[in-house]
Amino acid sequence: MKASQFSISTIKETPSDAEIVSHQLLIKGGFIKKLASGIYSWMPMGLRVLRKIEQIVRDEMDRSGAQELLMPVSQPGELWEESGRWQLYDEGLLLKFKDRHDRDFCFGPTHEEVITDIARTELRSHKQLPVNYYQIQTKFRDETRPRFGVLRAREFIMKDAYSFHNSLDCLQSTFEQMHATYTQILTRMQLEFRAVDADSGSIGGSGSIEFHVLADSGEDLIAFSADGSYAANIELAEALAPEANDTPMKALTKVETPNQKTISAVVSFLDVPVETTIKTLIVEGSQTPLVALVLRGDHTLNTLKAEKLPEVRQPLTLAAEADIQSTIGCAPGSIGPAGLNNCPIVVDRSAGVLYNFVCGANEDGFHFTNVNWHRDTPDIVIADIRNVVSGDPSPNGNGALDIRKGIEVGHIFQLGNKYSAPMKATVLDAEGKAQTMVMGCYGIGVSRLVGAAIEQNHDDKGIVWPASIAPFQVVVIPINAHKSPNVERVSLELYEQLEAAGIEVLLDDREQLRPGVKFAEAELIGYPHRIVVGDRTLANNEVEYTERRTLEGANWPISEVTTRLLSALGKAQ
Amino acid sequence: MKASQFSISTIKETPSDAEIVSHQLLIKGGFIKKLASGIYSWMPMGLRVLRKIEQIVRDEMDRSGAQELLMPVSQPGELWEESGRWQLYDEGLLLKFKDRHDRDFCFGPTHEEVITDIARTELRSHKQLPVNYYQIQTKFRDETRPRFGVLRAREFIMKDAYSFHNSLDCLQSTFEQMHATYTQILTRMQLEFRAVDADSGSIGGSGSIEFHVLADSGEDLIAFSADGSYAANIELAEALAPEANDTPMKALTKVETPNQKTISAVVSFLDVPVETTIKTLIVEGSQTPLVALVLRGDHTLNTLKAEKLPEVRQPLTLAAEADIQSTIGCAPGSIGPAGLNNCPIVVDRSAGVLYNFVCGANEDGFHFTNVNWHRDTPDIVIADIRNVVSGDPSPNGNGALDIRKGIEVGHIFQLGNKYSAPMKATVLDAEGKAQTMVMGCYGIGVSRLVGAAIEQNHDDKGIVWPASIAPFQVVVIPINAHKSPNVERVSLELYEQLEAAGIEVLLDDREQLRPGVKFAEAELIGYPHRIVVGDRTLANNEVEYTERRTLEGANWPISEVTTRLLSALGKAQ
Repeated sequence: MKASQFSISTIKETPSDAEIVSHQLLIKGGFIKKLASGIYSWMPMGLRVLRKIEQIVRDEMDRSGAQELLMPVSQPGELWEESGRWQLYDEGLLLKFKDRHDRDFCFGPTHEEVITDIARTELRSHKQLPVNYYQIQTKFRDETRPRFGVLRAREFIMKDAYSFHNSLDCLQSTFEQMHATYTQILTRMQLEFRAVDADSGSIGGSGSIEFHVLADSGEDLIAFSADGSYAANIELAEALAPEANDTPMKALTKVETPNQKTISAVVSFLDVPVETTIKTLIVEGSQTPLVALVLRGDHTLNTLKAEKLPEVRQPLTLAAEADIQSTIGCAPGSIGPAGLNNCPIVVDRSAGVLYNFVCGANEDGFHFTNVNWHRDTPDIVIADIRNVVSGDPSPNGNGALDIRKGIEVGHIFQLGNKYSAPMKATVLDAEGKAQTMVMGCYGIGVSRLVGAAIEQNHDDKGIVWPASIAPFQVVVIPINAHKSPNVERVSLELYEQLEAAGIEVLLDDREQLRPGVKFAEAELIGYPHRIVVGDRTLANNEVEYTERRTLEGANWPISEVTTRLLSALGKAQ
Repeated sequence: MKASQFSISTIKETPSDAEIVSHQLLIKGGFIKKLASGIYSWMPMGLRVLRKIEQIVRDEMDRSGAQELLMPVSQPGELWEESGRWQLYDEGLLLKFKDRHDRDFCFGPTHEEVITDIARTELRSHKQLPVNYYQIQTKFRDETRPRFGVLRAREFIMKDAYSFHNSLDCLQSTFEQMHATYTQILTRMQLEFRAVDADSGSIGGSGSIEFHVLADSGEDLIAFSADGSYAANIELAEALAPEANDTPMKALTKVETPNQKTISAVVSFLDVPVETTIKTLIVEGSQTPLVALVLRGDHTLNTLKAEKLPEVRQPLTLAAEADIQSTIGCAPGSIGPAGLNNCPIVVDRSAGVLYNFVCGANEDGFHFTNVNWHRDTPDIVIADIRNVVSGDPSPNGNGALDIRKGIEVGHIFQLGNKYSAPMKATVLDAEGKAQTMVMGCYGIGVSRLVGAAIEQNHDDKGIVWPASIAPFQVVVIPINAHKSPNVERVSLELYEQLEAAGIEVLLDDREQLRPGVKFAEAELIGYPHRIVVGDRTLANNEVEYTERRTLEGANWPISEVTTRLLSALGKAQ
């Protein structure tokens, strides 16, 4: 493609509403254009990236044996009434409308209802199973405050797949196949990612795995072992119990700690290691008004784990300070398990192995030191209620955990009969009896992947596209071609050679722009490889090569450009 | 593809709400599935056809230099307020909704507003022009009574393109290029079609051409010369004035025609040729209460032409019978121009050359015979107000007109500044002054083309796909493969050979179906070529070939199958 015949629409100003780097770079690089809050047009440069991701997804889904179809954007409300989600779906994210005959419709955020409706007429015998249908399609979620550009847009593009089975074993097998397919998709996209155990959330079902692209701007925390054998959303990662040791108990002492209301204040006031302190959170209970949750001073509460405790009321709610005062008799900053008799005490595994530790004395302005569980607080429950931290042992026994931030780009679910049962999607089994089908569903955010790839691959000059999804793999920039017929000729010859070799190349033949502007723009847009053709190096029959990721340059003989680029792109010649 | 791994979902019953053959065959063949009135899912078999059409459209648009982008489905109402179409657009076909912040949006039926909004920020200098943006995208028109399956669905897929220019000459050149591109698209699809002069309708602008796929079920009538040098929607085709001749005038006679109220009744009662009679329609006038429109007895009024007469009120409205009675003094069936003094008389060119003709006598139960214009009705206006008929001379002088029915599948418009002026889409011209851009727009109905192709290509057994858009080009049907290892082996070898040769082949390896069922299904679905592998012909090293269009069969040597199919598909080996 020649730049003179292709819309390149970079802008200089960083848009004021773009909070994160992928949003800023997509707008500045002219990949997308905002139409309304959370609603974007994909300009020619951006659409090239989107289509490459779509094609990788389609290739791998086809290879897995899944079948592509295309369901409508508009969905009748009556199907959502059948599944029970018309009123329930994610508190207002479902965009509803009425047609001219006043019938209820929605602009689909997901297609479980539609595919189940198709399956219940399409699939009649267990012999037709398993089947896995997928589509790549535009969806809508009416976010209250759309942010983060294409990472959380209102209108977006998803690949969603739905599988149908006559047994959980069969579902498990397709689920594992989709796990492998998603791994292959993200590997082909050259992204660093983790497949992690996850909570099934509102979609429901019995098992789910999230796929996260690792990036410092990610909203999720992922814990994984160095050897890759374990990975989980931090919500779910188990914190193993440390081994207890046999330190001799010292005498319990009550010390004055005036106005020291936080762990860090107490630690510095008493000059003790934070790992020898504990903190106590009071939450509302399920059988008792209050429940105490006890953690080591440097750990944080995992709310998902805490919510699953039988003692705790769902959703997890911190106790009001007035209730704490009236029941325990002190402010929240001075609570501790020793002498706390008015509520059940749940102690995290790591706090449970401490000896001679520091905690609040249940009296404003006082703490205990040298507290010991068996001696001073015999009646406790031990449980895993904290978030894991870097260096914790991996739950599968393989080394220590590392923790990184991730952007969720895919999620695969074992749905079971959550939709097939209420919507009566059955097939006849081998005995001719109606049997409710078992379902799985598998989503990957196609437009979100564009943003996630940038969050992981950028520097202060712009985007650093992985070659697999770059809008063009190579840019050729002639220097002052209008003054040098030699530069013009060599540039054009190189352009044609590269195209003939199957390399996607942009020849930046725009006459009105200075070379410096073209260089800066090429770095902003992020073509992986740049070739500059100028009289100076042409004197030695060379051109100047720069790799976008390292920004390192070298002079290359003209005759070797195609070969070297094919090699850099991992293509056979 | 193997049929055992692909959803084939034909059904036996013709759906009761499917009025036309393409709708019936798409449902029966399992290409589409109804989700709601006018809203369909594309099943795997149907999606293959849709994608092939998309790809032909995309190829040819790219080849023309147009640039693909992707605009959102949801559009903010404020842009439609700017263009003035929020209240006006086609009387309620615009599906409006409000987001959670109560802002107006619509589900786009067309994207002039959005692209003009993009262009006014994107295009700043006349040097960036011309540019032609296109997308292939889902749209919505909230039809009152969706009918005809994908020919008039509520949710549908369009390719829409929009070009921007700094002069009408430049627009004209892109318009002609799009004319050539659409011709190439429909030619590659192997469809019989006509590009016809058309009315611009509500989109407005100064020139437009429609593309019609010819089919007996078409809703439009297309007039064209046999040599292809002229074609127009019958709405617009000019009826030339016949040459007058010099027949001697006979004496005007008033004859009794009791209860003969229609032309055909009068013709048979008086036993005269219908071509010697005229009929008179009374419509509401613009300057006078009534206007008489006069046509030869066998011709029909062209309402578009009549509406453009200065004498006639828009929209064209037939006069109420009571007004006719009170003004003219007779019923509508007895009106004639002779002696009609109360309203202007507009006479069609063909009626205007008649001599000694028959017409109503403006008195119930009486007609005149031997009426002559100059003698009996001197004060008339001659105009072209009728629809052309087969055999009329072509307006461009090249032979006679033929008339066929057509389905409109594409429409290209010269919009001028209809959108760019109200939305202030300007560029700086060579002198640095703001200049309103000139626009063109170019639509082709991608999902509608699926239906139109079937309307043109089917027989009583099912669809007869042109090979270019068939879901598979060849089906291989083994006969009782589970009983004959030879049949199984040859079928599989042929399947692999054909795939290797780049032919899209479906191997119908489903064991549970009888051969007769597979044959009927293959004819319903409409694969262009069928190969049957059975023990009987294998004895001679042959298979049975059948062409879907002719249903003619022949035995082919196994060794020649690939070569012959490549040749039938027009592919180089």
